[in-house]
Amino acid sequence: MSLVVSEAVQVLSRTPATLRALLTGLGEEWVETDEGPETFTPRDVLGHLIYGEETDWIPRLRIILESGEKRPFTPFDRFGFRAQYGRAPVDELLRRFAELREANLRDLIALDLQPPQLALRGTHPELGMVTLSQLLATWVAHDLTHVAQVVRVMAKRYEDTVGPWRAYLRILQ
Amino acid sequence: MSLVVSEAVQVLSRTPATLRALLTGLGEEWVETDEGPETFTPRDVLGHLIYGEETDWIPRLRIILESGEKRPFTPFDRFGFRAQYGRAPVDELLRRFAELREANLRDLIALDLQPPQLALRGTHPELGMVTLSQLLATWVAHDLTHVAQVVRVMAKRYEDTVGPWRAYLRILQ
Repeated sequence: MSLVVSEAVQVLSRTPATLRALLTGLGEEWVETDEGPETFTPRDVLGHLIYGEETDWIPRLRIILESGEKRPFTPFDRFGFRAQYGRAPVDELLRRFAELREANLRDLIALDLQPPQLALRGTHPELGMVTLSQLLATWVAHDLTHVAQVVRVMAKRYEDTVGPWRAYLRILQ
Repeated sequence: MSLVVSEAVQVLSRTPATLRALLTGLGEEWVETDEGPETFTPRDVLGHLIYGEETDWIPRLRIILESGEKRPFTPFDRFGFRAQYGRAPVDELLRRFAELREANLRDLIALDLQPPQLALRGTHPELGMVTLSQLLATWVAHDLTHVAQVVRVMAKRYEDTVGPWRAYLRILQ
């Protein structure tokens, strides 16, 4: 495996277990909280991650490999998960996410991407020209931003409860 | 258990496994990265959390229960972990954190804190008057802020690698 791919796989393979450790069995008060209208609850984040596994990362990677810049990516709907996963229980979402991620990483590893493939270009519908290695790095950073979101949304429940300590807690700024 | 304590325990009991899922076996390039001088690596965060279990949360809780506002808390040294835990391997830190957290939650639950105790006041050396329930909520939010920090520090490695996608990734702002 090239270094770029193996670094990415290290993180991508850990996200399902990380979210399981954080969210399985957790009370509704923690998994159904959000940051206001049109923001994600921790449960929504799982739906969004599942939808990305189904429609975003590997499909875009295949578009680059098969069509390069000629065929722009299908736009990704951040809220596209709602129809199918909007009301599903957390444990079902955790299981589905872990299964899809495992299958997608198997596909990624099987492609055995090397530097020439990693430098291939695709066309993002809004951002324009992007490379395959940027897509891989974004898959990783997208996982991390949503893990950060889950804990930030949870912490927000306590923004008043912590009293004067709020000044010390960056997550509440 | 009072509602306040049981809510807090739900989150506090999950943090060691969450950090284990994220960090165990992860390459040095991910666990030794930081955000610049005097910032924490993911490994440093584990040391800092251990030091909090040893010297901060339960000791402060006991000061409130035993002395109230009369005796200010001992100041907490954010970098106090370095002498003992500065160079320890990640797996050793994860194990130590999990053991201490488990013992501290056993102590917390055994205290069976009820609303009259939760309203008791203590004196923070910088912030002044705080309550026991604010201390408990801060313990929870402190866990969450450091989980967020670990993933933010990891994501920072890719702030350039993601290319134009950086604009979409809140964790990189």
